[in-house]
Amino acid sequence: MPRVITFGEIMLRLSPEGYNRFVQADRFCATFGGGEANVAVSLANFGIDSAFVTKLPKHEIGQMALNSLRRFGVDTSCIVRGGDRLGIYFLEKGASQRGSLCIYDRAGSSIAEAIPEDFDWDRIFEGADWFHFTGITPALGPNVAEICLIACRTAKEKGLTVSCDLNYRSKLWTREQAGKTMSELCKYVNICIANEEDAFDVFGIKAEGSDVNMGILDREGYKSVARQLLERFSLKAAAITLRTSYSASDNGWAAMIYDGNDCYFSKEYRIHIVDRVGGGDSFCGGLIYGLISGWETQKSLEFAVAASCLKQTIEGDFNMVSVGEVTKLMGGDASGRVQR
Amino acid sequence: MPRVITFGEIMLRLSPEGYNRFVQADRFCATFGGGEANVAVSLANFGIDSAFVTKLPKHEIGQMALNSLRRFGVDTSCIVRGGDRLGIYFLEKGASQRGSLCIYDRAGSSIAEAIPEDFDWDRIFEGADWFHFTGITPALGPNVAEICLIACRTAKEKGLTVSCDLNYRSKLWTREQAGKTMSELCKYVNICIANEEDAFDVFGIKAEGSDVNMGILDREGYKSVARQLLERFSLKAAAITLRTSYSASDNGWAAMIYDGNDCYFSKEYRIHIVDRVGGGDSFCGGLIYGLISGWETQKSLEFAVAASCLKQTIEGDFNMVSVGEVTKLMGGDASGRVQR
Amino acid sequence: MPRVITFGEIMLRLSPEGYNRFVQADRFCATFGGGEANVAVSLANFGIDSAFVTKLPKHEIGQMALNSLRRFGVDTSCIVRGGDRLGIYFLEKGASQRGSLCIYDRAGSSIAEAIPEDFDWDRIFEGADWFHFTGITPALGPNVAEICLIACRTAKEKGLTVSCDLNYRSKLWTREQAGKTMSELCKYVNICIANEEDAFDVFGIKAEGSDVNMGILDREGYKSVARQLLERFSLKAAAITLRTSYSASDNGWAAMIYDGNDCYFSKEYRIHIVDRVGGGDSFCGGLIYGLISGWETQKSLEFAVAASCLKQTIEGDFNMVSVGEVTKLMGGDASGRVQR
Amino acid sequence: MPRVITFGEIMLRLSPEGYNRFVQADRFCATFGGGEANVAVSLANFGIDSAFVTKLPKHEIGQMALNSLRRFGVDTSCIVRGGDRLGIYFLEKGASQRGSLCIYDRAGSSIAEAIPEDFDWDRIFEGADWFHFTGITPALGPNVAEICLIACRTAKEKGLTVSCDLNYRSKLWTREQAGKTMSELCKYVNICIANEEDAFDVFGIKAEGSDVNMGILDREGYKSVARQLLERFSLKAAAITLRTSYSASDNGWAAMIYDGNDCYFSKEYRIHIVDRVGGGDSFCGGLIYGLISGWETQKSLEFAVAASCLKQTIEGDFNMVSVGEVTKLMGGDASGRVQR
Amino acid sequence: MPRVITFGEIMLRLSPEGYNRFVQADRFCATFGGGEANVAVSLANFGIDSAFVTKLPKHEIGQMALNSLRRFGVDTSCIVRGGDRLGIYFLEKGASQRGSLCIYDRAGSSIAEAIPEDFDWDRIFEGADWFHFTGITPALGPNVAEICLIACRTAKEKGLTVSCDLNYRSKLWTREQAGKTMSELCKYVNICIANEEDAFDVFGIKAEGSDVNMGILDREGYKSVARQLLERFSLKAAAITLRTSYSASDNGWAAMIYDGNDCYFSKEYRIHIVDRVGGGDSFCGGLIYGLISGWETQKSLEFAVAASCLKQTIEGDFNMVSVGEVTKLMGGDASGRVQR
Amino acid sequence: MPRVITFGEIMLRLSPEGYNRFVQADRFCATFGGGEANVAVSLANFGIDSAFVTKLPKHEIGQMALNSLRRFGVDTSCIVRGGDRLGIYFLEKGASQRGSLCIYDRAGSSIAEAIPEDFDWDRIFEGADWFHFTGITPALGPNVAEICLIACRTAKEKGLTVSCDLNYRSKLWTREQAGKTMSELCKYVNICIANEEDAFDVFGIKAEGSDVNMGILDREGYKSVARQLLERFSLKAAAITLRTSYSASDNGWAAMIYDGNDCYFSKEYRIHIVDRVGGGDSFCGGLIYGLISGWETQKSLEFAVAASCLKQTIEGDFNMVSVGEVTKLMGGDASGRVQR
Repeated sequence: MPRVITFGEIMLRLSPEGYNRFVQADRFCATFGGGEANVAVSLANFGIDSAFVTKLPKHEIGQMALNSLRRFGVDTSCIVRGGDRLGIYFLEKGASQRGSLCIYDRAGSSIAEAIPEDFDWDRIFEGADWFHFTGITPALGPNVAEICLIACRTAKEKGLTVSCDLNYRSKLWTREQAGKTMSELCKYVNICIANEEDAFDVFGIKAEGSDVNMGILDREGYKSVARQLLERFSLKAAAITLRTSYSASDNGWAAMIYDGNDCYFSKEYRIHIVDRVGGGDSFCGGLIYGLISGWETQKSLEFAVAASCLKQTIEGDFNMVSVGEVTKLMGGDASGRVQR
Repeated sequence: MPRVITFGEIMLRLSPEGYNRFVQADRFCATFGGGEANVAVSLANFGIDSAFVTKLPKHEIGQMALNSLRRFGVDTSCIVRGGDRLGIYFLEKGASQRGSLCIYDRAGSSIAEAIPEDFDWDRIFEGADWFHFTGITPALGPNVAEICLIACRTAKEKGLTVSCDLNYRSKLWTREQAGKTMSELCKYVNICIANEEDAFDVFGIKAEGSDVNMGILDREGYKSVARQLLERFSLKAAAITLRTSYSASDNGWAAMIYDGNDCYFSKEYRIHIVDRVGGGDSFCGGLIYGLISGWETQKSLEFAVAASCLKQTIEGDFNMVSVGEVTKLMGGDASGRVQR
Repeated sequence: MPRVITFGEIMLRLSPEGYNRFVQADRFCATFGGGEANVAVSLANFGIDSAFVTKLPKHEIGQMALNSLRRFGVDTSCIVRGGDRLGIYFLEKGASQRGSLCIYDRAGSSIAEAIPEDFDWDRIFEGADWFHFTGITPALGPNVAEICLIACRTAKEKGLTVSCDLNYRSKLWTREQAGKTMSELCKYVNICIANEEDAFDVFGIKAEGSDVNMGILDREGYKSVARQLLERFSLKAAAITLRTSYSASDNGWAAMIYDGNDCYFSKEYRIHIVDRVGGGDSFCGGLIYGLISGWETQKSLEFAVAASCLKQTIEGDFNMVSVGEVTKLMGGDASGRVQR
Repeated sequence: MPRVITFGEIMLRLSPEGYNRFVQADRFCATFGGGEANVAVSLANFGIDSAFVTKLPKHEIGQMALNSLRRFGVDTSCIVRGGDRLGIYFLEKGASQRGSLCIYDRAGSSIAEAIPEDFDWDRIFEGADWFHFTGITPALGPNVAEICLIACRTAKEKGLTVSCDLNYRSKLWTREQAGKTMSELCKYVNICIANEEDAFDVFGIKAEGSDVNMGILDREGYKSVARQLLERFSLKAAAITLRTSYSASDNGWAAMIYDGNDCYFSKEYRIHIVDRVGGGDSFCGGLIYGLISGWETQKSLEFAVAASCLKQTIEGDFNMVSVGEVTKLMGGDASGRVQR
Repeated sequence: MPRVITFGEIMLRLSPEGYNRFVQADRFCATFGGGEANVAVSLANFGIDSAFVTKLPKHEIGQMALNSLRRFGVDTSCIVRGGDRLGIYFLEKGASQRGSLCIYDRAGSSIAEAIPEDFDWDRIFEGADWFHFTGITPALGPNVAEICLIACRTAKEKGLTVSCDLNYRSKLWTREQAGKTMSELCKYVNICIANEEDAFDVFGIKAEGSDVNMGILDREGYKSVARQLLERFSLKAAAITLRTSYSASDNGWAAMIYDGNDCYFSKEYRIHIVDRVGGGDSFCGGLIYGLISGWETQKSLEFAVAASCLKQTIEGDFNMVSVGEVTKLMGGDASGRVQR
Repeated sequence: MPRVITFGEIMLRLSPEGYNRFVQADRFCATFGGGEANVAVSLANFGIDSAFVTKLPKHEIGQMALNSLRRFGVDTSCIVRGGDRLGIYFLEKGASQRGSLCIYDRAGSSIAEAIPEDFDWDRIFEGADWFHFTGITPALGPNVAEICLIACRTAKEKGLTVSCDLNYRSKLWTREQAGKTMSELCKYVNICIANEEDAFDVFGIKAEGSDVNMGILDREGYKSVARQLLERFSLKAAAITLRTSYSASDNGWAAMIYDGNDCYFSKEYRIHIVDRVGGGDSFCGGLIYGLISGWETQKSLEFAVAASCLKQTIEGDFNMVSVGEVTKLMGGDASGRVQR
């Protein structure tokens, strides 16, 4: 069984019940999530030996986060305990014309305050095949960016495949900071994943022959962006997720991937959204699963898109679907009939 | 007031809250349901003297099932108490591309272990006008199939109208077993109801001039199937429900009926699904109500389809609607405006 | 900061959870609402100095109602305490073809039993700029109609702008009663708001050249109705909300306003409904906000429609949105993307 | 199986969850209860043919009340439908030094507005053995008092045993009104039940040789009160429940009965209260069960006290216990061990 | 109406439902509390003009905190908005031998990062009679200690009475830091309140003739401690709350006060605990109410102890009781009977 | 870190919320538990390398059970997947005089239908130090009894310590069957644990010089029983838990152990019960922890009793406490104060 290591932050997510707004809530659903943790859970649910690396406070709230990962079979033995707090994010779910609202309260978390000495990457990567992180992790602070760099270097040395989801977060750093740090890290990356705005926000990459930032492009536009990513960082492939937000309740969802030779576009799903958070992460999980399983590019892409389509019908950050369920949807059965 | 007897299994239904998947649930909504019990509740809500016959364990969980029927006015005086357990089914509600998931845990239930001596059909049918059962009941085991046969024979002798919903369940028996047993039982049946696949699964009946199994046919195809059913079992009428699953959240819903002379097709509703389980049962309930009230075939069919459309906007197996509400929808008011 | 006074009834609203029907509920969500109270909360959330006037029983349930207003910053210092009970309304939320069901239990409430001596309008209107009420308030009884008349007269004397939402409720009074009382009150009104049926129900006003009651008209029809309203009562403007109920789950929503010179029609929103109750009230709140802020008519109308579009994506009667959120939607961003 | 008829009001009971106060509640548990309805449910749970008579509004909230009785097997076929509203009471559960808080909102209910013509007591009492009502019913208004009188007279004529729980409610009538009306009604009563204050409140009966009102008396004092009741109304027996409120969480509970010859005192239970509402009603239910079963006085009393002890460990007004459970506690097993 | 100003931190409190431990929770009850905010709510519920001063982030979670105060009538007009986050504390409720568990996550809150310029104490204290703070506020950081000092000085200048609850928190500062800062602040204090350990922790004050730290002392011991407090800081009075923790579920609760002349001890309550958090704060609220109302010392003390006894039967930090309820308990009615 | 293997059944536990009875429940809390699984979780929470062995169905409900163990760090890699169903037990929590009610629905579970070939004990015991099972496991059926025997034999061969909790369940087998099978298994057992009735039920062992079955004995009586156990099966030690059920809400709890030389009695705790299920299992977990850590007998016993005291203050079967928490209680701090 292949082994995948992901590294980043896991946060306590606090959401009002149903479609309640914050100002009318008197209880919160408490779940856990974060870009790389979500990928780790996706992969564990697909049967992969998946380990998540982070630093968590020793107290019971830190323990809740750790337990949330163990519950789905993620290997938590590389998680370091210490520091002061667990990052939190508050999520109010939108509906129709009212968008979801996300309030971060993550400063000062154990992982954001971690130091390079906290992690022994040689030991962590023992027996591992793949390393995944997102652009959120180095954005947590220069120390975490440094840890990330060490991890990437070690991964490279030990022959792991490295994937990175750009995931630009303007609340954590500026485009300049992101561009500088990510350029350094991307030297070690094999597979780069982005949504339709990340490539511009982080690297200033625009579709050739277009004077607009990314957003909604035609197929040639996406191909142009992906090709530029490949060229700049000697990637093996670049994938872009393509979301069309008709409203908070209804989205179109698809993706493309460019492997240096060909450009593949997936089927598009029209999703009646249950919870869109973690959509991109579940795409990464699906793509890693396909590629690590040695599947062809198109098949891997379709798996990734189907997996992340299903995620958006599930409450919480985590994608709780099996390979069988994804394969069934990939195979064209989107009727949602009862499985008896 | 006409009196209708239904016979079958009622199960404890355990569903995670909202759209939660099983693996994230830590509480279950506990309701009760089963093909014939659902019909009994539909009819009681329409004001019919409706009695449900089954065998329930003596313990408190059996009592909960019985109480769930009494609550809606179903006559439970013919229910036998004894045996070991109440059947259970776990239901995870789907959304969008993710289908609902149904896990049965019904083996060894009191009704599945019942014996012919448990039921005195002469007494049960006293004063009754109609007997309804589904293909699930005989599938519970040879003993229950035998009880069913006795019930059908007695019903016939006492002049009751007998209706049967084919309801093929591949987890309970094979097509061969179903075909053999149902052929015997259908000799006593006057009205046969099926969904678009049952006729083929149970009796191998295909639309003439078509080499495909049922699924989505044209109007002629459905008529052909219904006619074959009538011919094979000397039925008075055969009705087929027509569901189009666009996704787990959106379905088309209609039905047709053939009475030996004419073939009637109902209006089709586009339903934004709340809970699709029990859709077919509520169709049966509506159809029996119309026919027992002496309504014309087309009106009975429209009532049945409108009733079962409304069911799918209601949580749980039971159809909790009044004749007035169904009539209003039949009359064309599908606007869903507030009734003040 | 401008100060707005609203006067009317606030009720305890009891709703089953989610889409449960009354007959399956064993708990109720307890919120509070009422036409004018809803407007008061809208305005407080927009930063207006908003005071609500009513009479509430002294007991804890009356206190709950008062607290629900204070929570959102509504000035409750003009609320009189006394009388026997708080009005209640039971609301069952509809879905798809099943309409919402509203059962009123408001007779004998403290406000319905109030007497003119309970309210000192000179004091209440001190420092106020605007007075708003709806046709529900005078419908509560002749005593309340009289109080309303005194309030209108005093408002006029003190130079306040007076707005009225016709809001005809057939359960509270007949068309004749409504017509007589509202004709008297509307003499003092500057801005009249109605839905597509109110003008006919209350004043018998039909679109010229049309022999049908209002319902769905063309643009000329609505203009005709608004012009007749202006003429009959020397209003400054009349606004009409335009709802298209495709089903209980999906509505079209727009509005028009006529100011004696021009007739403005807003953008139309297609809303996936969370809770449609209070839609009209939030329109009033938005319109008053725009007009009191000195905005142009078209902008005020668009603000009102966007505000009330958002309301219908929020649980409960109260519109809990900020000026910023409404402005963003007005500006064309209806994509419902996550606000991080 | 003996048949018992009870007559009175059933109300919607709205309670905050757990130990929440009203002012912090945002949802209410919705159950149903009322003195005589509670007795009816007790008896149905003991296997008695128990029918409840009242008048309920036709709407869904009235239906919920009716369903709550059917669920436990109470015969609801004598319930009249009509009128405007269902009475409501709000209950906040106390704890330790904080007492429970009960707010009634019952004026204008269908039963309070009922008229003698609504009920055909000859038909209702057909086949019945016992009639039970409480002092709350005639307190609902002169019309209901008259209905009660007709019921009592008819019961007497038809040879039923009549029992009455005095249940004085100062919010419904004065001591003078109560005394006058109840004196008339008690002429028809065979068994009178009271708590430690009712006899004084309603009839001014004090323990002889004591100048204090009832409250906590010695055994002779209770005997004196019971004897005076018997003498004044030619009763067969008078029973008094004896509650010692140490706090809202801990109560002592016992009772005595005097049959004209002997005075029996029950065992006393120290109860850790779950819900004390309905304690007296469940005592009545238990006592009627014992006496109608032909048990000896002491045994009937012990059954009644054990039954009502168990009630106070159960949420809601209704006593959901079986004869077996009561008998086990009567037999001395108060250990609360797990029944596996 | 007297006006009281309190100053400090209000936090989001997150508690698992019922007696769940953190590691089994998947939702949190979200309430708000903090020493001085709790006093402000107590006073508002007693009808005092009560204003709370703090700094809250502008986002919706900050708004929730503000709304929680408005809901109970606290004047929030002096609250400054800005900064990054709202402090949080996680509370797991204990039972029997298992103590409650409290995890603070308050570093970096808006109030902890506030600067003296944020608050204009001259304006804040306009028209005010009393200023209250606790030892937690200056412990939030040197900047807040400085703000506190300015507030105290201004209060003194403007003639307000100043009260302080020592409330030593070892997680926020050392005994040395506390002693130094509190000694400075207490120069401005008139009424000092402490629990049985605070005086030693903050000031090293021990009962004379005793070589043990405080804990459980005899009456002379408490008197000695109170006298030393008065002498050291020229207080008008010092009060000490006396808790006996038999278990997490059962506590004894009393208090004493020394006014320089006499030493008063209150009645002791044995409390079956619902939620003990905020017990000391509700004592302060009660004491301030009594003293500001001009009551005698003993009466004020009994009111304070009864108020705080009731608090511990209520969920959440806030004491939601009226003067009438406290007076009733003070008067000796601890029976917890139903208030109908 | 020592490694402990436990073997048995884990069931889905369905409990109504709070103190609701089954017949009033409409949702169930879904947790998981079973004698040996509970021990496994206890040990994992103490930091032991703890693995649970069973057979679980492949479906999602089986997965939920597995996840519930992973969540707390139990090694689930030896769990076999297959078979038809997960055993279920329904638990209604008692209060005061009303005992808890437990309804088992475990027949036909995957583990009850397992065969010896399902488990490779040589592999399972690799690296393990201790094997624990209870008398429930062999009671599941002759096949499971045989598997148990193979496990015991293999454990012995590989030098593991074997412990057994007698746990007699009359619903699963007769005393005769239990006696015969357990006598065979106990040959391999080193540490035997029982409650006050098991020794008699399973082996007919009575206190010498007493003609009563066990129940409540004096110290000499318990010593006599323990000594007989040791003699009959060459045990190293026998421990007996001593529960005194004052009511469903209040219990006394203690234990004794006899090691062939000395007889130790623990401190007794008076527990205000939150959930008593799993009390004995948490005692086993604590005792194994103490003994495997090499502690002295008395200390191990006190740890086990303190651990199981805490369990009974926690909802669910699992004991979610740390070594630190147990040690604190052992050390005498039972005050339940807030841990800040």
